[in-house]
Amino acid sequence: MPLETPPGYAPLDSGSIPPFLAKLPPVAARLGGKPGDWKVSEVGDGNLNLVFIVKGPAGGICLKQALPYVRLVGEGWPMPLKRAFFEHECLREHGRHVGRLLPEIYHYEPPLYAIVMELLEPHIIMRRGMIQGIRYPRFAADIATYMARSLFFTSDLALGAGEKKGKIAVFCDNTELCKITEDLIFTDPYMVHERNRWTKPQLDGIAAKFREDAELKIAISRLKLKFLSSAEALIHGDLHTGSIMITESDTRVIDPEFAFFGPMGFDIGAVLGNLLMSYFSQDGHATAESPRGDYQDWVLATTEEVWARFRDEFLSLWRDKAMGDAYPRALFADGPAKVRLEEERQVCMSWLFADSLGFAAAKTIRRILGLAHNIDFEWIKDPDIRALCETRALRLARDMMVHTDRYQDIGAVTAAARQVRKDIARLS
Amino acid sequence: MPLETPPGYAPLDSGSIPPFLAKLPPVAARLGGKPGDWKVSEVGDGNLNLVFIVKGPAGGICLKQALPYVRLVGEGWPMPLKRAFFEHECLREHGRHVGRLLPEIYHYEPPLYAIVMELLEPHIIMRRGMIQGIRYPRFAADIATYMARSLFFTSDLALGAGEKKGKIAVFCDNTELCKITEDLIFTDPYMVHERNRWTKPQLDGIAAKFREDAELKIAISRLKLKFLSSAEALIHGDLHTGSIMITESDTRVIDPEFAFFGPMGFDIGAVLGNLLMSYFSQDGHATAESPRGDYQDWVLATTEEVWARFRDEFLSLWRDKAMGDAYPRALFADGPAKVRLEEERQVCMSWLFADSLGFAAAKTIRRILGLAHNIDFEWIKDPDIRALCETRALRLARDMMVHTDRYQDIGAVTAAARQVRKDIARLS
Repeated sequence: MPLETPPGYAPLDSGSIPPFLAKLPPVAARLGGKPGDWKVSEVGDGNLNLVFIVKGPAGGICLKQALPYVRLVGEGWPMPLKRAFFEHECLREHGRHVGRLLPEIYHYEPPLYAIVMELLEPHIIMRRGMIQGIRYPRFAADIATYMARSLFFTSDLALGAGEKKGKIAVFCDNTELCKITEDLIFTDPYMVHERNRWTKPQLDGIAAKFREDAELKIAISRLKLKFLSSAEALIHGDLHTGSIMITESDTRVIDPEFAFFGPMGFDIGAVLGNLLMSYFSQDGHATAESPRGDYQDWVLATTEEVWARFRDEFLSLWRDKAMGDAYPRALFADGPAKVRLEEERQVCMSWLFADSLGFAAAKTIRRILGLAHNIDFEWIKDPDIRALCETRALRLARDMMVHTDRYQDIGAVTAAARQVRKDIARLS
Repeated sequence: MPLETPPGYAPLDSGSIPPFLAKLPPVAARLGGKPGDWKVSEVGDGNLNLVFIVKGPAGGICLKQALPYVRLVGEGWPMPLKRAFFEHECLREHGRHVGRLLPEIYHYEPPLYAIVMELLEPHIIMRRGMIQGIRYPRFAADIATYMARSLFFTSDLALGAGEKKGKIAVFCDNTELCKITEDLIFTDPYMVHERNRWTKPQLDGIAAKFREDAELKIAISRLKLKFLSSAEALIHGDLHTGSIMITESDTRVIDPEFAFFGPMGFDIGAVLGNLLMSYFSQDGHATAESPRGDYQDWVLATTEEVWARFRDEFLSLWRDKAMGDAYPRALFADGPAKVRLEEERQVCMSWLFADSLGFAAAKTIRRILGLAHNIDFEWIKDPDIRALCETRALRLARDMMVHTDRYQDIGAVTAAARQVRKDIARLS
């Protein structure tokens, strides 16, 4: 029996899409010609949704529609359609602050849970580019700007409490998507669960060790509690390199359907963690024609640059645009308090950095020992090499999560990444 | 021009109350006789609302109705009626866990923003009792139970994330009442503001010093940020000794109209801070017939007992009733993780203690340098003695907020309170 859906909803297909778009004059104009000329192709390679590209004589658009279940699994794992609503709400909210770093939104159709948006060409998913060893010179600056602005402007530093609470309330209903994160990232990898998988038998030992690691369980639970109870800012909620469409000159963040008001470090950690995973995975993609040593240096330099730029940009916004209720301007207008506030900003950034490292570690562990894996590692065909890369990533992640205070700056993180690669020369 | 109110709303009075209650059979039965026999008196001595006592031949009830403005100030300070909705919601939610410590609710009338509830007799407002030097032997145990259960069962330790988010969303709309707290407690006392007042001229110097105290402004701003962004549990939001109706054998918490999902330490700090203020104020109420030395000892012993009992009861709930998503049971069922979790519980309680001391200090400072003062101090007629008591309270509060880590247990707090009383023997 198919899952029940609200009246007015039906999954779109190549037959129903042209008449639907024809009723949207700006979209029809963008495509050009007549509905009969429009070519529809389904391209969704994600886990959850339908994604179509529609091309007409004048141009193209992208159409994303939620399905009432997890596409990867099927109707056996229902998933609410309203995730499209939250994605659109987040794109709108973040779009006010970082418009050029998101796809342009042309239309949202509530009953269809469908978003019509800019077709990003010739962008590719950043993760795929990194597996090929492509450098993205603008990425660090762009993602730093996206995070600094989207997080700052939805935080208590920029918003009045009443306005922020109104926005929090909207996203409180995105509970099913949050639950995926709560389970798959913060819980399952640390226990026996049928959803978990890993490179077997090579990682059997480390997977078992992690499941019995009391310090790690405490550390992940502290992070989970922060995820559950810290409504710091409107976070993307799934900001890995698979949520970034990119060229060497343009960066766009997509897919914020996991958005809600949560800890800022969760987004930052997602970016840092996925860069570190890419770093460790490169050894599995290196060939004689494509050695990856220099690329690994670039990845770590980019990791450092992301944090450094984020930090600078966020601090600069805090100095110049702090109209919110936290650290109210009226208390710190001049004199010693103004000086002291600048020190406090640095302290807050060090706290945020620590949070980010914890979440980066959590993101890494779930991608290696949990349900959803990254193609960075998955596409390494030799399981011994894959397991070696994964073991190094796990070693660093465990240390970052349990001994976060040993990582006082981003240089300590990249140095540790290099060291782990030396320390673990082969699978024992 | 009177403030606009929604259709169906009108302030109740002795004429309209009997016909309104007559339509509520259980309430009418409780009063007994006929509406003509019911005697209505207005007794509101609070700052915000109308409060009526209605007595009939068989019994009595209490009726609380929101006004569209702050009663203390008048129509010049509008205040939304919906605060009655939030009060009722909180009474319902907390009532599930601590029913015997709240007034029984007989009826809520949405269009009138009116709550019909148990008439608490012969209870008095605890603050008034403490000014008279009355001991309440059950208070520490009762308030500890109220806080432990109301906070635990609305936290991530007891609730699933989805259920908690649903409740958070409801209270997100209580923004006007939260703003009162944000302004009057966390901001105004630390700056020049026309709403501020203090015992003049005796406290002019300390008030000026506090307004220029950079460390204090940082400390209060950290607490404010926690208040703005930490949705730990459904807190009462105004849990001072004026929100407690009490006899020597019964304790009831009233007036949770400031309720929202915020930091647990805010409620605990309100209780601790108000006990400490009572301690310092006793010197202003002592007479030859009623010396207060022993009573002060009782107040400090009660302060210690409140925290110790709260801590024990909260920990015990965490050990036995932790069905929530935080620190999930599945990760800590046995072995070293189970042992480690018990250590973690102690750590969490020390964090909560630190939060509570910060909020206790914030509550103290606002009652002495801000808009709304306590009768504990206000009823001390001699301004020099009042100022002496207030100065001591301010000295301890400033130290607790800025040097919170010097107070590792509640004994350190009560010892410091005694010491401050010795150190400041007279106004300098």
